[in-house]
Amino acid sequence: MPDLASLVTHIAAEMAKAPERGRVADYIPELAKVSPAQFGMVVITADGCEVAAGDADVAFSIQSVSKIFALVEALSRDANAVWARVGREPSGSAFNSIVQLEAEGGRPRNPFINAGAIAVTDLLSAGDDPRAGVGAILRLIRQLAGDDDIAVDGAVAYSEAASGHRNAALAHFMKAHGVIAGPVEATLSSYFHQCAIDMSCRQLARAGRFLMHGGIDPASGEAVVSPERARRINALMLTCGHYDASGEFAFRVGLPAKSGVGGGILAIAPGRASIAVWSPGLSPQGNSLLGTAALEHLAGATGWNVFNP
Amino acid sequence: MPDLASLVTHIAAEMAKAPERGRVADYIPELAKVSPAQFGMVVITADGCEVAAGDADVAFSIQSVSKIFALVEALSRDANAVWARVGREPSGSAFNSIVQLEAEGGRPRNPFINAGAIAVTDLLSAGDDPRAGVGAILRLIRQLAGDDDIAVDGAVAYSEAASGHRNAALAHFMKAHGVIAGPVEATLSSYFHQCAIDMSCRQLARAGRFLMHGGIDPASGEAVVSPERARRINALMLTCGHYDASGEFAFRVGLPAKSGVGGGILAIAPGRASIAVWSPGLSPQGNSLLGTAALEHLAGATGWNVFNP
Amino acid sequence: MPDLASLVTHIAAEMAKAPERGRVADYIPELAKVSPAQFGMVVITADGCEVAAGDADVAFSIQSVSKIFALVEALSRDANAVWARVGREPSGSAFNSIVQLEAEGGRPRNPFINAGAIAVTDLLSAGDDPRAGVGAILRLIRQLAGDDDIAVDGAVAYSEAASGHRNAALAHFMKAHGVIAGPVEATLSSYFHQCAIDMSCRQLARAGRFLMHGGIDPASGEAVVSPERARRINALMLTCGHYDASGEFAFRVGLPAKSGVGGGILAIAPGRASIAVWSPGLSPQGNSLLGTAALEHLAGATGWNVFNP
Amino acid sequence: MPDLASLVTHIAAEMAKAPERGRVADYIPELAKVSPAQFGMVVITADGCEVAAGDADVAFSIQSVSKIFALVEALSRDANAVWARVGREPSGSAFNSIVQLEAEGGRPRNPFINAGAIAVTDLLSAGDDPRAGVGAILRLIRQLAGDDDIAVDGAVAYSEAASGHRNAALAHFMKAHGVIAGPVEATLSSYFHQCAIDMSCRQLARAGRFLMHGGIDPASGEAVVSPERARRINALMLTCGHYDASGEFAFRVGLPAKSGVGGGILAIAPGRASIAVWSPGLSPQGNSLLGTAALEHLAGATGWNVFNP
Repeated sequence: MPDLASLVTHIAAEMAKAPERGRVADYIPELAKVSPAQFGMVVITADGCEVAAGDADVAFSIQSVSKIFALVEALSRDANAVWARVGREPSGSAFNSIVQLEAEGGRPRNPFINAGAIAVTDLLSAGDDPRAGVGAILRLIRQLAGDDDIAVDGAVAYSEAASGHRNAALAHFMKAHGVIAGPVEATLSSYFHQCAIDMSCRQLARAGRFLMHGGIDPASGEAVVSPERARRINALMLTCGHYDASGEFAFRVGLPAKSGVGGGILAIAPGRASIAVWSPGLSPQGNSLLGTAALEHLAGATGWNVFNP
Repeated sequence: MPDLASLVTHIAAEMAKAPERGRVADYIPELAKVSPAQFGMVVITADGCEVAAGDADVAFSIQSVSKIFALVEALSRDANAVWARVGREPSGSAFNSIVQLEAEGGRPRNPFINAGAIAVTDLLSAGDDPRAGVGAILRLIRQLAGDDDIAVDGAVAYSEAASGHRNAALAHFMKAHGVIAGPVEATLSSYFHQCAIDMSCRQLARAGRFLMHGGIDPASGEAVVSPERARRINALMLTCGHYDASGEFAFRVGLPAKSGVGGGILAIAPGRASIAVWSPGLSPQGNSLLGTAALEHLAGATGWNVFNP
Repeated sequence: MPDLASLVTHIAAEMAKAPERGRVADYIPELAKVSPAQFGMVVITADGCEVAAGDADVAFSIQSVSKIFALVEALSRDANAVWARVGREPSGSAFNSIVQLEAEGGRPRNPFINAGAIAVTDLLSAGDDPRAGVGAILRLIRQLAGDDDIAVDGAVAYSEAASGHRNAALAHFMKAHGVIAGPVEATLSSYFHQCAIDMSCRQLARAGRFLMHGGIDPASGEAVVSPERARRINALMLTCGHYDASGEFAFRVGLPAKSGVGGGILAIAPGRASIAVWSPGLSPQGNSLLGTAALEHLAGATGWNVFNP
Repeated sequence: MPDLASLVTHIAAEMAKAPERGRVADYIPELAKVSPAQFGMVVITADGCEVAAGDADVAFSIQSVSKIFALVEALSRDANAVWARVGREPSGSAFNSIVQLEAEGGRPRNPFINAGAIAVTDLLSAGDDPRAGVGAILRLIRQLAGDDDIAVDGAVAYSEAASGHRNAALAHFMKAHGVIAGPVEATLSSYFHQCAIDMSCRQLARAGRFLMHGGIDPASGEAVVSPERARRINALMLTCGHYDASGEFAFRVGLPAKSGVGGGILAIAPGRASIAVWSPGLSPQGNSLLGTAALEHLAGATGWNVFNP
């Protein structure tokens, strides 16, 4: 294995000059303003070494990467309630598809597609002020990243709410089937706000460390989740973390990871590293094009691939 | 970790007395005759230690486990042709669904659902005698298992052909879309014969050893496939190996594995073990009920789970 | 043909004692309170003769029968805008299915399924006070029925809004695709209010007279729509008026008709009669069970069937 | 109403010079050879007057128009068996879609889509020589048209069989669900042969006369079917006769009609006329482009529209 710092610097340099950078998400107007020229990467190894390159400290909208933290928070409160609402299977369809919901009685296939994450969020906020759910997720993220400055970008949240009719359709459909308990508007507000959390690659890689350590946060030494839950979350990230491109990501990169349409990806090499990459241009399936390429390069060069001997 | 021999013996004893054993596949008349009382398990570790329990040497119909070997053989001949025909994504639907084919222009989502395996088989046999494809798969399996007595059960192959109208529908549908090159009847005959290969757990665990060793067959020391291909096949097994229960299997067991409706499962713990289990009773999704339970127990007790640190 | 008054009286008597009466709609709580024991029927012939039986003057919630009048009003304003938004094909799926919308880019198949009617309603109210759309439909209905007492049942409208998450899902989905122009909440409010219009069979049969007369309202002698539009609306009623049981209705009854989940049906025998029936119990597809039986009896006895020579 | 002969001549002249003629079916190689320049039309009125124009005596492949006669023959033998196998609803999908079959347990929605017609054909031939079914249909057609020269075009039948993998997929799928009783190959052979019957517009219009006369063949004065069955077949033609463009045809033309991919359409104006048109160029939904235009012109000029007063 090459020197990790050199490798990450090299990858960032390659990505900086990549001609094909994907397409910035434009269905949320506020996200469409972000320049596709950016690329950042941070790798934190099991021994605590932190390697950064590119726009590693530029904050971006984590979007669906937040689904990991919402799931952790909801499982901590009531795991049975979570799995009563959402499944654990890849969806075989787009991140915002409603067809599967109709075919399966309003039950989302997994917590990492939009419908599933909305159902999880509803568990966090039902009966409360909608802000309570976002607040809990934000507290968890700040603690894991060790940074109290992490916050919701209000303009993005507002932009998502104003343009989020597809998510509203999913939420109302689940409400019609009794999958959502609280008022749809409150649940959606909570969901849009958690998606609009801003983080840098450095903050995100730090927040993901517990997933490489069997659930233990190395900063505090305390268990965020049990070892069994940590590996199960990793399993869900591997099978469902990239929407309808999860199989391809497992084939090419071989690491549990969750992407967001803001262009961020959090990837975990269990026992080895927590990795965050960010580049705003997306593949047609909604995953960061250069982020995926960078992870493939890194996994190939380091051998960090859960399917290697 | 407990002593492996004791552990496997203990698991087999537990499975022998399990009251709920699933339902033997009955859509292939010949398979419906198999007694659900049986259970076998063989674990071969990286250092070559071989531990067996229960009906470890009883031959059973490997059915869809054969899809691994058909894929290896086809990739060896022309990997580009394989990936031009089939995808690498979980299907989100049943093992024999045709809906996805219509929605996606006749292209199967992955090589481990029936449609995908038929398309792969066609690559092996097109233009040849249909027996050529089965012959190549059988040669590969015999060599990997080190056992020239492994053979096709003609009665099962005949039974599958006589009752395989759903597979015939898939094949004709793909033929209409140009995904299958050879005569449909010949391709189906080849497919039904490869599914009807009989193997014991011991033979199957041996045949799978190369997948725990990055592609190297430990018996010969030669590369069956490259390290990259070995990990990619493992990735496909993890995301697509249990049809529409692949996510659940990854969540509970956390190992790449491929099941068949004969009740067999081949599971790989990369760098650790090649494991074969067999029990004929199936879950509603078509995977061995006790086989899955046994693997969950084994993975839990040994820590063999690709998502552990 | 028998004496019409005797025939209608006879049919009502038969229906009064029918043991199997279907199931009253229960997804709108306010409708679930209606007694299934009721049955009403009014036939108005081309020469103006009006024959009534049973609960002919009891007001009921017309629900989807209102879709006819909303369509007439929208076509009068801008027919091109209507057909740019909705198709003219039977849907092949349930009245509230969202699958078709996803498969066809948010465009409803016809104006008589919920999604299509919501899109039509949006045309009537976009940019206005939501009450403007309902007001226009109500004015049209009052004028056609010659009865200014026809009104919206506020309790039903409120009940529909509170429980109408599935319709909200349809509306948000169409909004995401640009099919709906106005605010979703306003469009839905307008839609729920038009569905909650209360009418008796007598009022409904009168309101439908123009459709048997090639568009001419016999009370005023004026054209409500052109002859071409009248026959086209009849065609839509025949192919799409009973959701996914439209084919069966055409097969058995052979008349253009539109049903509602309140248990009402307006049927047209072109050049012969305008017929309204009502009985609250529904078939599994959401159409009045006894209403359909009564129309089949009437059409059989009179020969009023558009497919007869 | 204008003089019928002048009208038909005028329509044929208009169609002869139409610049946009649609696209000749090319998925059956033998049909792809037919020149799109042709157009024929024959109208037979209730009083027996026969008006022809254009290529009225050129034989063409009737293809799916044969589904009417197969249905008549099967209903005559065992109507209960027919309706146990196929439904009476428009499909909401393409003529050769298999998605609906999977969603509905292998039961075709109606006898006028391919799957439904194959199921009907199987009823005619199961247990017999496959030629028995085609023979019965051919005898019925010859008798109705009063012409014993009508025959199957063997080259077309062969061409369909060689390229008919999509129909084979439908048939095997239904066989897997027990909807087809006989050997799939025999049923398909029978189906392909009945589709390959050659008829001219004159022969076809004659063969359809019983449907305008409540089931009575005017040539013999005998009942081919009962009045009830005649109107029900007309109802099915109206709701399902043009695949997924049936609603549009009812909207524009307003007559029961059945199209075929050979470019022929048989339309019935109950009590008025039996009409056959032919022009090989098709719309995207698989219906004759100029045939539809000609029927719309004819129905508009004559007022022959079942939805008119």
